[in-house]
Amino acid sequence: MADYVYGPGRNHLFVPGPVNIPDPVIRAMNRQNEDYRSPAIPALTKVLLEDVKKIFKTTTGTPFLIPTTGTGAWESALTNTLSPGDRIVSFLIGQFSLLWIDQQQRLGFDVDVVESDWGHGADLAALERKLRNDTHRTIKAVAIVHNETATGVTNDLAAVRRLLDAYAHPALLLVDGVSSICALDFRMDEWGVDVALTGSQKALSMPTGMGIVCASPKALEASKTARSVRVFFDWKDYLKFYEMGTYWPYTPSIQLLYGLRTALDLIFEEGLDNVFKRHNRLGTATRFAVEAWGLKNCCQKEECFSDTVTAVVVPPYIDSAEIVKHAWKRYNLSLGLGLNKVAGKVFRIGHLGNLNELQLLGCLSGVEMVLKDVGYPVKLGSGVAAAAAYLSNYTPLIPSRI
Amino acid sequence: MADYVYGPGRNHLFVPGPVNIPDPVIRAMNRQNEDYRSPAIPALTKVLLEDVKKIFKTTTGTPFLIPTTGTGAWESALTNTLSPGDRIVSFLIGQFSLLWIDQQQRLGFDVDVVESDWGHGADLAALERKLRNDTHRTIKAVAIVHNETATGVTNDLAAVRRLLDAYAHPALLLVDGVSSICALDFRMDEWGVDVALTGSQKALSMPTGMGIVCASPKALEASKTARSVRVFFDWKDYLKFYEMGTYWPYTPSIQLLYGLRTALDLIFEEGLDNVFKRHNRLGTATRFAVEAWGLKNCCQKEECFSDTVTAVVVPPYIDSAEIVKHAWKRYNLSLGLGLNKVAGKVFRIGHLGNLNELQLLGCLSGVEMVLKDVGYPVKLGSGVAAAAAYLSNYTPLIPSRI
Amino acid sequence: MADYVYGPGRNHLFVPGPVNIPDPVIRAMNRQNEDYRSPAIPALTKVLLEDVKKIFKTTTGTPFLIPTTGTGAWESALTNTLSPGDRIVSFLIGQFSLLWIDQQQRLGFDVDVVESDWGHGADLAALERKLRNDTHRTIKAVAIVHNETATGVTNDLAAVRRLLDAYAHPALLLVDGVSSICALDFRMDEWGVDVALTGSQKALSMPTGMGIVCASPKALEASKTARSVRVFFDWKDYLKFYEMGTYWPYTPSIQLLYGLRTALDLIFEEGLDNVFKRHNRLGTATRFAVEAWGLKNCCQKEECFSDTVTAVVVPPYIDSAEIVKHAWKRYNLSLGLGLNKVAGKVFRIGHLGNLNELQLLGCLSGVEMVLKDVGYPVKLGSGVAAAAAYLSNYTPLIPSRI
Amino acid sequence: MADYVYGPGRNHLFVPGPVNIPDPVIRAMNRQNEDYRSPAIPALTKVLLEDVKKIFKTTTGTPFLIPTTGTGAWESALTNTLSPGDRIVSFLIGQFSLLWIDQQQRLGFDVDVVESDWGHGADLAALERKLRNDTHRTIKAVAIVHNETATGVTNDLAAVRRLLDAYAHPALLLVDGVSSICALDFRMDEWGVDVALTGSQKALSMPTGMGIVCASPKALEASKTARSVRVFFDWKDYLKFYEMGTYWPYTPSIQLLYGLRTALDLIFEEGLDNVFKRHNRLGTATRFAVEAWGLKNCCQKEECFSDTVTAVVVPPYIDSAEIVKHAWKRYNLSLGLGLNKVAGKVFRIGHLGNLNELQLLGCLSGVEMVLKDVGYPVKLGSGVAAAAAYLSNYTPLIPSRI
Repeated sequence: MADYVYGPGRNHLFVPGPVNIPDPVIRAMNRQNEDYRSPAIPALTKVLLEDVKKIFKTTTGTPFLIPTTGTGAWESALTNTLSPGDRIVSFLIGQFSLLWIDQQQRLGFDVDVVESDWGHGADLAALERKLRNDTHRTIKAVAIVHNETATGVTNDLAAVRRLLDAYAHPALLLVDGVSSICALDFRMDEWGVDVALTGSQKALSMPTGMGIVCASPKALEASKTARSVRVFFDWKDYLKFYEMGTYWPYTPSIQLLYGLRTALDLIFEEGLDNVFKRHNRLGTATRFAVEAWGLKNCCQKEECFSDTVTAVVVPPYIDSAEIVKHAWKRYNLSLGLGLNKVAGKVFRIGHLGNLNELQLLGCLSGVEMVLKDVGYPVKLGSGVAAAAAYLSNYTPLIPSRI
Repeated sequence: MADYVYGPGRNHLFVPGPVNIPDPVIRAMNRQNEDYRSPAIPALTKVLLEDVKKIFKTTTGTPFLIPTTGTGAWESALTNTLSPGDRIVSFLIGQFSLLWIDQQQRLGFDVDVVESDWGHGADLAALERKLRNDTHRTIKAVAIVHNETATGVTNDLAAVRRLLDAYAHPALLLVDGVSSICALDFRMDEWGVDVALTGSQKALSMPTGMGIVCASPKALEASKTARSVRVFFDWKDYLKFYEMGTYWPYTPSIQLLYGLRTALDLIFEEGLDNVFKRHNRLGTATRFAVEAWGLKNCCQKEECFSDTVTAVVVPPYIDSAEIVKHAWKRYNLSLGLGLNKVAGKVFRIGHLGNLNELQLLGCLSGVEMVLKDVGYPVKLGSGVAAAAAYLSNYTPLIPSRI
Repeated sequence: MADYVYGPGRNHLFVPGPVNIPDPVIRAMNRQNEDYRSPAIPALTKVLLEDVKKIFKTTTGTPFLIPTTGTGAWESALTNTLSPGDRIVSFLIGQFSLLWIDQQQRLGFDVDVVESDWGHGADLAALERKLRNDTHRTIKAVAIVHNETATGVTNDLAAVRRLLDAYAHPALLLVDGVSSICALDFRMDEWGVDVALTGSQKALSMPTGMGIVCASPKALEASKTARSVRVFFDWKDYLKFYEMGTYWPYTPSIQLLYGLRTALDLIFEEGLDNVFKRHNRLGTATRFAVEAWGLKNCCQKEECFSDTVTAVVVPPYIDSAEIVKHAWKRYNLSLGLGLNKVAGKVFRIGHLGNLNELQLLGCLSGVEMVLKDVGYPVKLGSGVAAAAAYLSNYTPLIPSRI
Repeated sequence: MADYVYGPGRNHLFVPGPVNIPDPVIRAMNRQNEDYRSPAIPALTKVLLEDVKKIFKTTTGTPFLIPTTGTGAWESALTNTLSPGDRIVSFLIGQFSLLWIDQQQRLGFDVDVVESDWGHGADLAALERKLRNDTHRTIKAVAIVHNETATGVTNDLAAVRRLLDAYAHPALLLVDGVSSICALDFRMDEWGVDVALTGSQKALSMPTGMGIVCASPKALEASKTARSVRVFFDWKDYLKFYEMGTYWPYTPSIQLLYGLRTALDLIFEEGLDNVFKRHNRLGTATRFAVEAWGLKNCCQKEECFSDTVTAVVVPPYIDSAEIVKHAWKRYNLSLGLGLNKVAGKVFRIGHLGNLNELQLLGCLSGVEMVLKDVGYPVKLGSGVAAAAAYLSNYTPLIPSRI
């Protein structure tokens, strides 16, 4: 069978991952297997490892392209740099930071959880207190999500670095950039991030299956003594094969390698900073729509608004899960559910990855109809109008097209 | 590079052909060549020839899948049924009927042109007069477009048949269904159409390259004596190979055959009549938007409104070609130009083929922004609101999805 | 259903067209439709029209990329340059030259057929006699296949040109290059060819659907006065759109345009002359195998041996159609049938297009097993050994790979 | 450019993984991302989990489709069933069993290594001694590769089970089926295998990226108390989502799910037991060729000959790495290197996955030419002849095709 549930026209994919894959990437991946020990794949890998550093804005980092998901990338970041019992200060601000913390605990670390109400960013004041009091340097790492996908909240990583520097604290800075890297400005070197990571199916706009982890020299150094048990995720095996020039300790997906090549080509052609600006515009437009509908952003502070995902709070008399279900069934529109504490209370619009204005406006028009269908007194067209008014005012980003 | 002009996100394809190809069709065509003389291709062809009759609503017709375009399909219809000098009554109501008439003239027929103002349908009163006066049965064929793609006007074929019957006129009825078949209800047998034709890149939602021509028994009979010169387009060669069970007088596109298989599967899964209803809804929604913008439909009569393409008249102070150009460059939105007599005066929104509501609303939001950008005082969101209000009220068409 | 007849592993496609498509071409064609009136498609077309001239080795010719097959390309060549009743000297040396002659006759030309026994090349002595006697210049064109696909015979076009020049004869030289261009050295300008043509599914290694026709300045001049009826195939319409820079009188296949772009890229990367050499090597290897099997080449003269297809004569007690049928059913190997006069007497191995040594040797090993299965006393491995001995001796053609 | 090293024609992929992907699987994977939380993906997953059990021949097992490689699948098998310090009897018979043992040691188990000379199978006599002596039941698991990919040796799993049963030993039986499952008869339930695993890029003939692990009820029970640290690979998380009917603890590759659907469809259409027979025939044919060349199989005992990979021993004066390098550069033929102890001494021909006779014979003809090129006195055609003589004698396996 061609598909499990068929409907005419395209699916409108606005979950915050997996995201829309650009056609050139689909084309590049439409291929046979190859021997990864031939001269061709190492040659390809070599340039990919150089180029992928650019999306982290690092020149000193060492990237790993691991056949895994974001969850595996998390595990790679933790087990390569820390030993069982090590203290991690970790921020709980939503479902994905929660899941990471759960992993940290199950991996045997001593997790010092700093919780915020969902919808707020990381509590940096609490971090400051902990750093100030940590005279014995028991904090081995600070773990933080750059962007909390469940609530649409972006944390201020530069501020985290300033605090660490202010206290000259040697803790490693481990960052989940799953829903930020390639969409939000991410500055690994400038911010002194020690491990940053993302997944291929997020803003890189590829299929799922590649966890991309980048380690600072300090993180690499830490990996030499970290005693966490690891094999599949062990950087050491990768580094050994990097040294030999064959690059792969085990079999990579040939298709994802060519897909990454094209995904990077497209990002560089648009310009990484233009990609960020585009995300900012689409995010801002979405927020104008939400405002026009009379609904609230789950994210409580404007400076934390996420340009990759907006969690929209629905009135108490509506179950947000109904919105998501109806959107998919009736309009072939995929929206994100509210998770855990905000289940039933928010739905999420993912606006990250390879997207343009009219795709977003189509989505917003769908959300309006869904809101109406579930009994919310929305004025049809209001959100689209607000978003379009904003979008039609800005200068186009791609001169070559104009 | 793979693409000549890159922009992030998808192209929004709303020309009235070529139209959006559904992903399952693209997948089905993603394949190697095969020997068309193997047992597999005739087996596939045999069922295709049976199934393709359904889109014409014919049981008695004989279809031909010709490696050509709509222009070639026209030529096939004419040269197989008529002899040089034969009189054809032909309706000129827009650019595509004009081009067909030009072809008829160049092929050496005696074309009796019945012209209407562009925006009006075929002048059937004129046809009636001609039939009434044609006591010597000099009219060998009536040639008509079912849907004029340039102006968005749908002709009433049942009425044409009634006139021919009223005068018991033996003229062949030749119909261009290029922008109607698989989108507008088309009843070859019921309407006594003798040759009907379409192209793969229209409502069938495939790539260009297959001209699909269907001949009634009367048309086949006529082909035995028609003296127009033809070889490539000669039905006789096809019929000879049909007889042998090998089907192809020359090499078909293997990819288009598998594409057609899947395109038909999708149409039958949705239900052909549901496909028509969907087109009616998207067409109606588009007209509501045009009205909300304060613009006029090029089509002058409501009963002729086309459910596959809407030609929108712009105010005299705007050049519609600028709209089309700007839409493509700024929003990656492809609209249709005004052609010939209506060049500069109309732009066209194609809403045929494998499309759904949110794709259309995305397009309409884009048209609004473009109208604003070129200086037309449009209220952003107004067209989307009008279209959405209409669309959100109807009953979904695909129960399985719900 | 995925396929009409499934078997594990790949199909081995060795008919002389359609041929194996290289993966990069399949990838390039794995795409959506686009508006062919946008700025992108004319930009693409413009460079394609320049680049495609290289495969004809012409700088003065004008190419046409027609949505049709080889049969349509033939019709385009004839109807654009000649008028009904014009005398054509045409060589009948096999099924495809026969079909072209049939077309010439049905199009109303006065065809002066020069027949050879099948397996022989064009009878140039007869041509010389005709030219010598044609003092009134009644011969308007000489029509010849460069390579007769049915018998594996390559004609000497340079010799034809020498004859025309020797008699200063103004007849147009019309050449079917369907199974030669991009595989055999073809020199349009040097040989004074007036119209040359091929099909996309032959040595260009693309799907079927594009007839590529190239006209000399003299042919273009002739087209201004040629009175054959034509519309779909009329060069005039193309030239009008070339002039306007929009290039297309009707809708092209977007997919085939991108496919052609990639097909040409691959040919130019390998080097057109290297492509010819590769064909010569694979053709020679095939002939060594045939000899080792103790079978005869249908082509009677060594200087006419075709490097794109070998027709192999089977002993009288074997029906060659059984070989083709068994090869497909038992080994998933597609071979070419014997046609018309040589039906049952020969089978054909197509060795044109994007192929390499091991593909051919796999095919030859299959032919050996089939020969054994149908009762021919072949020594298994003998043909492969002979072919391999030859192939393993030559210098590799692609230094970059080595 | 899309490819790093271009050559005309296809790559001949005969490494023992990744293997050739059938075209229908490539087509099925040629697709957009989807929301894995929509109703469609769980519906697809549910049937996949049922169907995938068939390739393990289990009805009681629980499968996990993990976004990882074989190395990750190993880790999943070990960490879910065992606790640090647990004693594992593990057989070292080649590079892949060695790597698994290395992993076992690094994960903190007490590995009791039973080594054989490379080229021999697992030393079951040693196992018997250990079981006999293990009165305190200190052996918690027996870990064994079904097929050692480095040497082409297949172990006798039924014999292992008989030994465990003979001593009524409760040790878990953990089996690496990476280069066997879907190619060699594998009977999880009958042989009492507790964890079996494979990777998508092996005999399933898909891209790399899915580790397929199947756990017996006893293994699942063990996982409740196993204290090895694990999160990404933890079965518990999968089981929780199985229970909820949403199936995925983290994001799966949509493309691989549809690919698996088609891969299984093809295997079931051919018939799993026919797939095994096909592998036996291709493996046997390869061994006949090796014998004809006068070379030795690295595998020392006929009853251990592998039907998925043959490691061929080269004479001491030839470096087998040169053979692999030359095959790729000169003939676009990918062969497997000799690894570790047999580096330079063997090269490997992978004959697993979606392959047919002529593909293999093409490969063998290439190996012959390479052997000649590197100075081995091979008779060209001899291996092909021996293999073809064997292959052409057997009854075809797919009646529908015949």
